Amino acid sequence: MIGHKSAIEGHQTLLAACIQTDFGGGSEPIRADLEARLQAAAAAGCRLALLPELHGGPYFCQREQTGAFDLAEPVPGPGTAWLSRLARETGLVIVGSLFERRAAGVYHNTAVVLDSDGRLAGVYRKMHIPDDPGYYEKFYFTPGDLGFTPVDTAVGRLGVLVCWDQWFPEAARLMALAGAELLLYPTAIGWDPNDPDDERRRQLDAWRTVQRGHAVANGLPVLACNRVGFEPAPDATGPADGIAFWGSSFVCGPQGEILASASETAPETLIVDIDLARAETVRRIWPFFRDRRIDAYGDLLRRWRD
Amino acid sequence: MIGHKSAIEGHQTLLAACIQTDFGGGSEPIRADLEARLQAAAAAGCRLALLPELHGGPYFCQREQTGAFDLAEPVPGPGTAWLSRLARETGLVIVGSLFERRAAGVYHNTAVVLDSDGRLAGVYRKMHIPDDPGYYEKFYFTPGDLGFTPVDTAVGRLGVLVCWDQWFPEAARLMALAGAELLLYPTAIGWDPNDPDDERRRQLDAWRTVQRGHAVANGLPVLACNRVGFEPAPDATGPADGIAFWGSSFVCGPQGEILASASETAPETLIVDIDLARAETVRRIWPFFRDRRIDAYGDLLRRWRD
Repeated sequence: MIGHKSAIEGHQTLLAACIQTDFGGGSEPIRADLEARLQAAAAAGCRLALLPELHGGPYFCQREQTGAFDLAEPVPGPGTAWLSRLARETGLVIVGSLFERRAAGVYHNTAVVLDSDGRLAGVYRKMHIPDDPGYYEKFYFTPGDLGFTPVDTAVGRLGVLVCWDQWFPEAARLMALAGAELLLYPTAIGWDPNDPDDERRRQLDAWRTVQRGHAVANGLPVLACNRVGFEPAPDATGPADGIAFWGSSFVCGPQGEILASASETAPETLIVDIDLARAETVRRIWPFFRDRRIDAYGDLLRRWRD
Repeated sequence: MIGHKSAIEGHQTLLAACIQTDFGGGSEPIRADLEARLQAAAAAGCRLALLPELHGGPYFCQREQTGAFDLAEPVPGPGTAWLSRLARETGLVIVGSLFERRAAGVYHNTAVVLDSDGRLAGVYRKMHIPDDPGYYEKFYFTPGDLGFTPVDTAVGRLGVLVCWDQWFPEAARLMALAGAELLLYPTAIGWDPNDPDDERRRQLDAWRTVQRGHAVANGLPVLACNRVGFEPAPDATGPADGIAFWGSSFVCGPQGEILASASETAPETLIVDIDLARAETVRRIWPFFRDRRIDAYGDLLRRWRD
């Protein structure tokens, strides 16, 4: 399914796609599906495509298993080469997300940015690593050591961050301060099937709200592309032992206004026309960068002010 | 009118009031109105009350007029004493907002916190000062020099910030890192009557969203108390020369969930039962403070990363 929503203003627009995917079917059909959907997005006129976090297959961090390190690969490597070919063939700028093997014992959760000519324009290694039941990422991923550096591409300067980063205003701010024109979040987040419905609603809305807040505070559009559908844990102990990825991929403008939002339950290629000139207008009426009290922010570098 | 909305959970709660006020009627009736409403809030069982920004009278920053400095007063001074008496008489912790005269040529936009026994528990001088058409605050207010320091009171440690601060994630974060249990924003924000309706909607929702985002990112409740109603500019050149303060005072919980929200057009004493234990629960499932990359945040102290 391809949905198309218009942006709020018409000029200097960028047509972008979030490829919200259900990873329940194993690796090979996923790769064919992703390829077909990237080609379709390009055929629809898109110039930028964002994939969910760790789009190589099922989300393996639900358990801590040393065997899962076999899934990792160097960057650049086969996963990068595959995305590079697709970028070159389609003319898309593609933001993908790989399990990077850097050395024995040093692995990263790494976003790769392929420019429209297939060149590896840049990488970002996830800086904030979560660890909570079902998301044992601290076991797998060494925290990134490349900092918060946007990547220049044919469609602009991209502030690529990954999932857990989306809860940290510091990450969004540092990308914006470095001139990022868009923030992009490959994501893998869902519900614990044992949580009651009101808690689920609060979690999903909090996730959307904090990212929309980054758009507002920094005056730029935000794209978040999530997995969707239920993935059982590798050695599930029952039908509710797994993650119900909540989809809901979305794109918002620089006032946090939702431009388009995807299904909570089904795969979807969310195509959005983003008005790149809008940020200039918004930053003129709300010039937050003019007024930051950098003389008084020193304690942001402390763990706790005690 | 007194509205009452329940919090999502029932234990260890704090009943708090946002005194959303229409300042169109001049200073003396406003003072009597505020006094009556604070007494009513206390009678309803509230222990904390938040007033709008610069609650002494009409919002004078719509023009740059040297005569307006006559409105300023020392802190402590008569405005503080009045709030102190009300706090002592009602047993409320009161967060008010004054135009402080510190010295000839040095004025501040200053929040005062009166403890439930009437003692001046602490002050906060607005750190981020706006300046845009209709809000000429850089003319009137020297930027605060007390930093981001919460105030301890009988109802907990309060992270008091003021209006324009609400757009800056750094301010919210620094208060949270210093142990603030609630964020409170006395506010004066409204629409330019010449803006079209879709722009008004985006602005109001952006204002709410960025503050809800602070609640999420920091795992604590947020209270915002705004003015409401139209205030013409001092020397208005026509019926649309003024600010339509948009009310919409609100309180949200630590997942950004709206607990209660006031009218866009009418005065209202918004009373909300805030579950103080909820933050502990939320910070256990979303331990953002554990994972901040303080080793990589240094550039937050730069104006721009160029």
